[in-house]
Amino acid sequence: MEINKQVKELQYSVIRTISEKSAKYQNVINLTIGEPDIPTPKQLILEALELAKNKHFGYPPTAGSVLNRTLAAEHYNKKFGTDFTHENVLFNIGSSEAISSAIKTIINPEDEVIIFAPYYPAYPPLVSLAYGIPIIVDISKNNFKVTLDILKSAVTSKTKAIILSNPCNPTGVVMSYEEIKNICDYISEKDIFIIADEIYNMITFDEYTSFGIFPTIKDKLIITNGFSKSHSMTGWRNGYTIVPKELRQYFLNASSYNVGSPVALSLEMGNIALNKYDEIDEIVAIYKERAEYMMSALRELNYDVVECRGAFYLFVNYEKISNKNSLDFAMDLLEKTQIAVVPGMAFGVEGYVRMALTVGIDKLHEAIERIKNFK
Amino acid sequence: MEINKQVKELQYSVIRTISEKSAKYQNVINLTIGEPDIPTPKQLILEALELAKNKHFGYPPTAGSVLNRTLAAEHYNKKFGTDFTHENVLFNIGSSEAISSAIKTIINPEDEVIIFAPYYPAYPPLVSLAYGIPIIVDISKNNFKVTLDILKSAVTSKTKAIILSNPCNPTGVVMSYEEIKNICDYISEKDIFIIADEIYNMITFDEYTSFGIFPTIKDKLIITNGFSKSHSMTGWRNGYTIVPKELRQYFLNASSYNVGSPVALSLEMGNIALNKYDEIDEIVAIYKERAEYMMSALRELNYDVVECRGAFYLFVNYEKISNKNSLDFAMDLLEKTQIAVVPGMAFGVEGYVRMALTVGIDKLHEAIERIKNFK
Repeated sequence: MEINKQVKELQYSVIRTISEKSAKYQNVINLTIGEPDIPTPKQLILEALELAKNKHFGYPPTAGSVLNRTLAAEHYNKKFGTDFTHENVLFNIGSSEAISSAIKTIINPEDEVIIFAPYYPAYPPLVSLAYGIPIIVDISKNNFKVTLDILKSAVTSKTKAIILSNPCNPTGVVMSYEEIKNICDYISEKDIFIIADEIYNMITFDEYTSFGIFPTIKDKLIITNGFSKSHSMTGWRNGYTIVPKELRQYFLNASSYNVGSPVALSLEMGNIALNKYDEIDEIVAIYKERAEYMMSALRELNYDVVECRGAFYLFVNYEKISNKNSLDFAMDLLEKTQIAVVPGMAFGVEGYVRMALTVGIDKLHEAIERIKNFK
Repeated sequence: MEINKQVKELQYSVIRTISEKSAKYQNVINLTIGEPDIPTPKQLILEALELAKNKHFGYPPTAGSVLNRTLAAEHYNKKFGTDFTHENVLFNIGSSEAISSAIKTIINPEDEVIIFAPYYPAYPPLVSLAYGIPIIVDISKNNFKVTLDILKSAVTSKTKAIILSNPCNPTGVVMSYEEIKNICDYISEKDIFIIADEIYNMITFDEYTSFGIFPTIKDKLIITNGFSKSHSMTGWRNGYTIVPKELRQYFLNASSYNVGSPVALSLEMGNIALNKYDEIDEIVAIYKERAEYMMSALRELNYDVVECRGAFYLFVNYEKISNKNSLDFAMDLLEKTQIAVVPGMAFGVEGYVRMALTVGIDKLHEAIERIKNFK
């Protein structure tokens, strides 16, 4: 039986493959999956569970209630200086579905979508699944920055959207105000959507600029976000999309045909998170400590580490240590040290591996000890 | 800004539109939404919540654990005489996402998909969103049965799949063994998938035949199901797909790129439902009482009601009462009696309305009193 051609090409996640393979080893330090080790705030869970005891959860309003959406808009406005209302917001099944439904909503067959490598591994296949054409632009040789020259050289008359991850998974790079402003100034004149994946924007170590603050692109900006990373709520599947209000009904229709509705209890948890747990400085401090320790220790061991200023990943160049390709390097590291990392090839760039800083500092100390003896 | 052409054509659900409109009236009897009024078993909820107190829910395994999938397979085998294992099953975000991801997985552009009217309203747009061509075949003049003649006349060299809802939403018709066997015998020789939407198959009043019992189609059968209707778990978004095991990885990849993973707590609730609440005879008896009362009362009032033997819908022909189109009839009924029903046009058939039997018998008595005076 023949199936869809794009689906046939899909690879099972390299990240999950390595993570599952690592389970065969004793005493593994698993730095593969982008899943916080810091637990969901206990009181947040308990409050939500109390609510669930006394309430029947039917279908929630399609794409979330006015209250859900207002809280998300206000959170953005307060934290990032934007000017959104509930008319800009729809809720999704995690930010994964936010991204897949958003891409589906805007892409027509043969539309080009510019994706900067290293990229979040799902972007290119999601564009292909929508019959768009992913245009991969490698910025690893440009200090991981999207400059205007690079952007201009990639844009064609068929460009429908650009996707940007900020803070970046897999590098931890946070885009500067100038970098974003230059992009927005250029795109504002064009019929090109900006998909800003800002899922990690509660976890930054310095200043942060959201794409949402630039009024010149407000008719073409799609922001995806959610609670998985900031509130360690991965398994609850609660995310949202911020879109131009004139287009919201289209995004809503596409999402609701795709998944029906968001998850009722997870929506309530989102409300509680935004009302009561919107300050996560202590958690950010933990990730920052891990990032700074690991950057420093790895650099001492002659690895070139991309400067991490947000999210919880290090993107580590190992080319002074080994000339293996990234998959072989990652497998070798796993076999000899029982440290599991993700090869750069999963993100479209060779010579690197990604380390998720989602284990405690003691384990990171141990990881460094093991890497010291790694050849 | 131009968006996707298919998304642009999507209509906001007629069912939700009427339901929302009905909220403007006082004392409405809302028979629009297919959402059980019977609450989720209280103990099921409490047990799940207790579990959630003591467990951190990270990402569940993609498409559900072996345990989740084994329980679903065993449930099917025990209830419906099939022979599935965990290798046939993947979990989804409700059966909505099961259907949307399944259609995406198999359809290439221009593939034809046969849909029988009256149909569940999402089928045609989901096929169009995947760039397939919905081929609508009206069976309302054929006693709502899919006979071999009808099927043969619709199949072409481009037919990729047929979609069947059994028990049928919106009619409550349950397909006979012979009817299904004839379809399977015919399709078994062809490269055509059967998508059997069996979401209502725990709610039937007589014998029930699953498409899963016919070995001749096991390489081309896709069953979608879930817990929303049988266990009143609509807001928890937990459904599953049963597929040929050789193809399971493709369905899994498509779903995981689409939504990431299922919902961790909802998967646990599914386990509890299958382990401890797999007998729902009392609930079925309630729906049966409502269906039989309403069929009889409406027929006395000169409405032609399709014989309902499962699910919780009546499909009611009003042509002896009115020659309005179904939208006008539904609006007139709402205005004059404050009874909200869904026009047949939402299901691709005129001259009918759908009544969801999702209110208590007392309200149904009152509905009949109101309809008696309706002109």
